[in-house]
Amino acid sequence: MDIVVQKYGGTSVGDLEKIKQVAARIKQKKESGCRLVVVVSAMGKTTDNLLSMAYNLSSRPKPRELDVLMSTGEQISISLLSIALNEIGCKARSFTGQQVGIITEGYHTKSKIADINSSIIIEELEKDSVVIIAGFQGVNGNNEITTLGRGGSDTTAVALAAKLGAVCEIFTDVDGIYTVDPRIYPNARKLECISYEEMMEMASLGAGVMHPRSIEIGHKYKVPIYVAMSTGEFPGTFIKESDDFMEKTVITGMAVDNNDAMVTVINLPYSTRSISRIFQSLAERHVNVDMISQTTPVNGLINVSFTIPKNDLAAAMDGLEELKPELGPFGIDTDTAITKLSVVGMGMRTQSGVAARMFTALSESNVDLKIITTSEIRISCAIDPKDQNRAVTAIAKEFDL
Amino acid sequence: MDIVVQKYGGTSVGDLEKIKQVAARIKQKKESGCRLVVVVSAMGKTTDNLLSMAYNLSSRPKPRELDVLMSTGEQISISLLSIALNEIGCKARSFTGQQVGIITEGYHTKSKIADINSSIIIEELEKDSVVIIAGFQGVNGNNEITTLGRGGSDTTAVALAAKLGAVCEIFTDVDGIYTVDPRIYPNARKLECISYEEMMEMASLGAGVMHPRSIEIGHKYKVPIYVAMSTGEFPGTFIKESDDFMEKTVITGMAVDNNDAMVTVINLPYSTRSISRIFQSLAERHVNVDMISQTTPVNGLINVSFTIPKNDLAAAMDGLEELKPELGPFGIDTDTAITKLSVVGMGMRTQSGVAARMFTALSESNVDLKIITTSEIRISCAIDPKDQNRAVTAIAKEFDL
Repeated sequence: MDIVVQKYGGTSVGDLEKIKQVAARIKQKKESGCRLVVVVSAMGKTTDNLLSMAYNLSSRPKPRELDVLMSTGEQISISLLSIALNEIGCKARSFTGQQVGIITEGYHTKSKIADINSSIIIEELEKDSVVIIAGFQGVNGNNEITTLGRGGSDTTAVALAAKLGAVCEIFTDVDGIYTVDPRIYPNARKLECISYEEMMEMASLGAGVMHPRSIEIGHKYKVPIYVAMSTGEFPGTFIKESDDFMEKTVITGMAVDNNDAMVTVINLPYSTRSISRIFQSLAERHVNVDMISQTTPVNGLINVSFTIPKNDLAAAMDGLEELKPELGPFGIDTDTAITKLSVVGMGMRTQSGVAARMFTALSESNVDLKIITTSEIRISCAIDPKDQNRAVTAIAKEFDL
Repeated sequence: MDIVVQKYGGTSVGDLEKIKQVAARIKQKKESGCRLVVVVSAMGKTTDNLLSMAYNLSSRPKPRELDVLMSTGEQISISLLSIALNEIGCKARSFTGQQVGIITEGYHTKSKIADINSSIIIEELEKDSVVIIAGFQGVNGNNEITTLGRGGSDTTAVALAAKLGAVCEIFTDVDGIYTVDPRIYPNARKLECISYEEMMEMASLGAGVMHPRSIEIGHKYKVPIYVAMSTGEFPGTFIKESDDFMEKTVITGMAVDNNDAMVTVINLPYSTRSISRIFQSLAERHVNVDMISQTTPVNGLINVSFTIPKNDLAAAMDGLEELKPELGPFGIDTDTAITKLSVVGMGMRTQSGVAARMFTALSESNVDLKIITTSEIRISCAIDPKDQNRAVTAIAKEFDL
């Protein structure tokens, strides 16, 4: 019998009525004849509420304790969903990350799944139970509760599907993957399918539908992923290996991200070592740097700009201030008013001139670019947020999104 | 260095301000020079809110899942308290029941502590950390999350103190143990000390200050227990071994309990086996029977009355209905309008006539008795709730409470 891993996000289990609806859908799916593993997120705003309590008590709460705190959100959801399922005669058992053996490594609040002990799950599936697993959490080698970072429930679901050789269905509050976030560009089209590579870029770039690491795992283990609305009303989007058909489109989608800040290190005495020390210091603080640009030396001084998540800004500033005695005097400029626009497409590998078309479209719309980076299948640029709508429309029209 | 186990109840950590106050008190205590283990309950009404969600989804939620659900309450408290302590420079680490190794046995939602692995606690104390432990919860031999029943955090605290050879301080929202609940009888006196035996009876009888099992453990391991207000303003009550001084008082206190229901099995064909089958059936359903009385056989038929917690009434009725085919036709009468009054005192063992004094006082106040039971150090009776105030005053005056 086939195993299906389903994941329901926080909005899908946002209140008791929705939990009952999800339970009914799970029961129906199970009666259609498959073995079901269900991963759930915390209900609605639970995680935010827990975090706000922690930050009320401390401006820098210990990450270890944040993990103990945040993991309760999913623990509440799994038990309630299990209670709802058993109530309608569908045998179910809930498991925390620790109980089911989701072993993690790395730092608290940003852990990665190292292994999953599938024996308990298999045993429960053989007893004909629906196995309900807390998303987003695990346990490290010291028996410490860990979490996988925001959106980590997707990672839990795809990793479980990989381990169990299952397909993975991600149910969320959007009905699939769009060429552009429809809240930003209402004319966006829903994609029938998208390749892992494209989805990974889109997810990394802030197209919030799925957690980037989950796509990475899906890609690595070739897990078929289906993203759809938790009410099941509309056909969703398949995430799968790319094929020729997909590559005929130059640009598959565009991501718009307002969560980054840009930092510029001004008049830094130029040396390769200085630049490496800066990014070393950021890495030590687990600050994820995305775009980087460097000016050519003028009088032996350079400017280095980079974008980071706004949340990491304080940590980045600490790191830079600490380097001043070592690297000599330099200025620091921060810009939290940036919008990152990215276009993504497998077709870019075989078709040239994409960057030229994009920048021409932007320039004709009088959009200034603050910083630009490119990879094999994406082009990103940071712009002023006030230009966002004009820029999105220009690019969407140019590439028929 | 001495180890002190402190327990803070749900009201003491009812909101973030109160958590900060508790953190400040813990820091002060630690700086006075002792090693501290702190047990906390769930914040305020958290457990009630979690339970009401579960019962909204199902009238009979699986106890295993209720434990997964309820244990989150204490997990939230421990992490927040640890965050608050670290914020004010007091090193602290939180542990769930599973993490610290509180091993339980028995049924979900009513588990008992079988053992505590103290090695992690000792290790953390030696690192000069305050060790914060989730009350009320543990883990059984199958790595299932378990809970100890309402008020179980007291049991966690006293069991930890027993294991660590520590004294136990119970901080709660009342400032000590009174002869009678002051909300019921405002003239009640606060006791400076009370024996384990007396406190155990008082606690079992619904004097809500402490969980009965916690006193039992305290008694068995001779743990010095101090009950006081979490604000620390007033001197509290010591619970300790009885001494001659204590036994000079005939009655130490009175408990008033409105949480019981009385069940009467009517016209049961008389046989010892029938009676034993009834209480067997209740025990199988984990229904705690308190008072029992049986009439003498008339025409081979008897009436058997007993009191049970109101919460167990549905389970008890199920058990009795199932016995009808086996034990022959009998009627069942239930009375949820009863008040249980109990007087408790070590002095009762050496002084006679206590029951006579009590029943005379009640009869002179025109209070009817529905059922009576006695033990070596207590006398209980069930009365109509409308007679409660008159009965309490009469008994308090008679025994100078």
